[in-house]
Amino acid sequence: MGTEFLKIKEVEEANDIIKKLFNELYSPKSEEIAIENSYKKVLFQDIESSIDLPPFNRSLKDGFALKSVDTFGASEENPNILKCIDSVEAGSFSNKTINKGECIEISTGAPIPEGADSVAMVEFSEKEDDEVFILKSVPPSQDIAIKGSDIEKNKLLLKKKTILSPDKIGVLSAQGIKKIATFKNPKISVISTGNELLKDNEEMEYGKIYDVNTNAIKNAAISCGGEGVANEIVKDDYDELKSSIQKSLKASDIVICSGGTSAGVGDILRHVLDDIGEVIIHGISVKPGKPTIIGKVDGKLVIGLPGNPVSALIIFYVFIAPNIRRLAGLNEVEKSKIATATLSKRLHSSKGRMQYSLVKLEDHLAIPIIKDSGAITSLADADGYVKIPKSVELIDEGEKVKVTLFNDF
Amino acid sequence: MGTEFLKIKEVEEANDIIKKLFNELYSPKSEEIAIENSYKKVLFQDIESSIDLPPFNRSLKDGFALKSVDTFGASEENPNILKCIDSVEAGSFSNKTINKGECIEISTGAPIPEGADSVAMVEFSEKEDDEVFILKSVPPSQDIAIKGSDIEKNKLLLKKKTILSPDKIGVLSAQGIKKIATFKNPKISVISTGNELLKDNEEMEYGKIYDVNTNAIKNAAISCGGEGVANEIVKDDYDELKSSIQKSLKASDIVICSGGTSAGVGDILRHVLDDIGEVIIHGISVKPGKPTIIGKVDGKLVIGLPGNPVSALIIFYVFIAPNIRRLAGLNEVEKSKIATATLSKRLHSSKGRMQYSLVKLEDHLAIPIIKDSGAITSLADADGYVKIPKSVELIDEGEKVKVTLFNDF
Repeated sequence: MGTEFLKIKEVEEANDIIKKLFNELYSPKSEEIAIENSYKKVLFQDIESSIDLPPFNRSLKDGFALKSVDTFGASEENPNILKCIDSVEAGSFSNKTINKGECIEISTGAPIPEGADSVAMVEFSEKEDDEVFILKSVPPSQDIAIKGSDIEKNKLLLKKKTILSPDKIGVLSAQGIKKIATFKNPKISVISTGNELLKDNEEMEYGKIYDVNTNAIKNAAISCGGEGVANEIVKDDYDELKSSIQKSLKASDIVICSGGTSAGVGDILRHVLDDIGEVIIHGISVKPGKPTIIGKVDGKLVIGLPGNPVSALIIFYVFIAPNIRRLAGLNEVEKSKIATATLSKRLHSSKGRMQYSLVKLEDHLAIPIIKDSGAITSLADADGYVKIPKSVELIDEGEKVKVTLFNDF
Repeated sequence: MGTEFLKIKEVEEANDIIKKLFNELYSPKSEEIAIENSYKKVLFQDIESSIDLPPFNRSLKDGFALKSVDTFGASEENPNILKCIDSVEAGSFSNKTINKGECIEISTGAPIPEGADSVAMVEFSEKEDDEVFILKSVPPSQDIAIKGSDIEKNKLLLKKKTILSPDKIGVLSAQGIKKIATFKNPKISVISTGNELLKDNEEMEYGKIYDVNTNAIKNAAISCGGEGVANEIVKDDYDELKSSIQKSLKASDIVICSGGTSAGVGDILRHVLDDIGEVIIHGISVKPGKPTIIGKVDGKLVIGLPGNPVSALIIFYVFIAPNIRRLAGLNEVEKSKIATATLSKRLHSSKGRMQYSLVKLEDHLAIPIIKDSGAITSLADADGYVKIPKSVELIDEGEKVKVTLFNDF
């Protein structure tokens, strides 16, 4: 072994290998969630209705439950007169049966009593003692929500992978469901390596910088359905990195490192993974992000992103995020995250490598962001990236490009 | 006093009154959040940079820091030879000064030593003991990220109301910021009233139904930037509702009730609010949702939505959500939530009231959902609603309509 790259992988090949690895090593897990706290959770299985809704024939209005035939011909001038034999409010019921010439006073939401087939609204009725004057004829089934008309028992209610929105949460509540199996967010640990990175307890000194990648990658993982469990900053030190990875593997499903991946001084992640596991990919034919590492330790993935925050986030979004999304029950890529725009100025690319170039969107224009490769502001300014295939050396001003958007707001 | 509606308000008037009330009674509050947990939080104030980034002139490559003039004319055949006087890794620094004919070995990320104005990449240099053979001429400033070139000190970094995405979190991290003031989510309590609603500890019996609104409205409030603090189901009982409202007012900024608002049997919310506070609106000229109540108690809003879950959610989205969003630092309505579509079949409306009609979107068609007004599935099927002004009696098949979308996925 040594510090040289393995055979550099093309983007499609790398994507295939990574997807296969994810599928081999992980399967989606479920977790029970109280539905009152289930906003944006993803259903782990199809949900069938267990009761009819409404659970009984239910009055849609305040009025009188009756036999519709008893209202035929009624008018304000010539009301039909019925005998009111009971009164029923929502939440209770009447056990009397309505016979011809009878009615029962009923509130919205109360069960329709036996013998009735319709409801006459209170607005078209008048009650005097136990006599009710029906002022208008009503057809059968008027203002009755029939048992099961909203949802029938034992029918598919919501499909697996439904993302729970307030209305869907309402549908589950109506069935009396209190807890629901949802996709469990895979746990992600993030480790940043670099002697130049200031640890939390260290004083700032010349030559040091604040770490970006733990927070940025943790939150990128959250944005695609992961749970960020632990962040750690370690020095470019074999033992320190090794013990941090081993600790993180215990706490999480996937460990994402950044820094220490270049084939040069400080290429320690490769050595650690060679020793405690296996390196599957070291090097992808892509710009930025060539020195990416995909390794496997104890049946879990350990991913090495470049130290440069911009490269790290782009590689994460392109190669890792779709797989985390799939584990979390989401679509690999949201359709809404692809925009078409016109390139505002010529974009150059290094031939021979797939290139991801940051752009800002303004009025359907994709404006390339040209900054130092390490500039964190270039990411904050960008709305997404344009993919330039390896055979393409430039895309000209005015050409239509597809922009993959970062944000899911 | 009494159970009659106050003067029914038109939609625009009601909207104005509600917005004014929100602005009178509430102002946005801030809360400190650790930036590692700040995904989707909203910045409460402009953030200025407190340090230059990079904080020093930083090498972008592994190589040799030198005076560019010392490389002029260098080639593989005729290398320039420099004396290597030190070596500097990222995270440390050299306090030596480079004089003419000298260079310092440097790693990516390390500070450029005094006297150097450029970096020669390791790929175009050869080192033998303390002699370095420069094989290619480099211009001044080659592969140096100048101090402050990414972000200058004391400049606007991120604006108030920026929603924190992973890249923006990265920008804050690069400044060494650990905590940040964000908009505090207003606290919302939800109370469902109705004798027909089954409480958690009650056995199902004929005439009862499971409550939908506590969970649906709580999660709708969360979807627009609220924090759901407490849910309660109470009977149509004056004392029970009153004490529930008083308890909820202590725990939350806004109390949202549903049910018990109709001008009929069981109109108890109005009575409670008349007694312990003030009713500002009772009745909006809108379908569904006419019996909506807006009240004020102890300087906080108590809102009465209809008991029908579909009406309750629509009224919430139309009249309440934009105000909660504003308090949470968000735009009142997201632009992305308005879609234009072609109506798939004629929509009728009751003249004289603004109507909100549920539609499903399919291939740019808006398909009206025609179900019983209480059918919770109609909401789950719907993607949004079409607004029909009160002067319009029907919108014909084939007409273009604007659909306000419910979901923010």
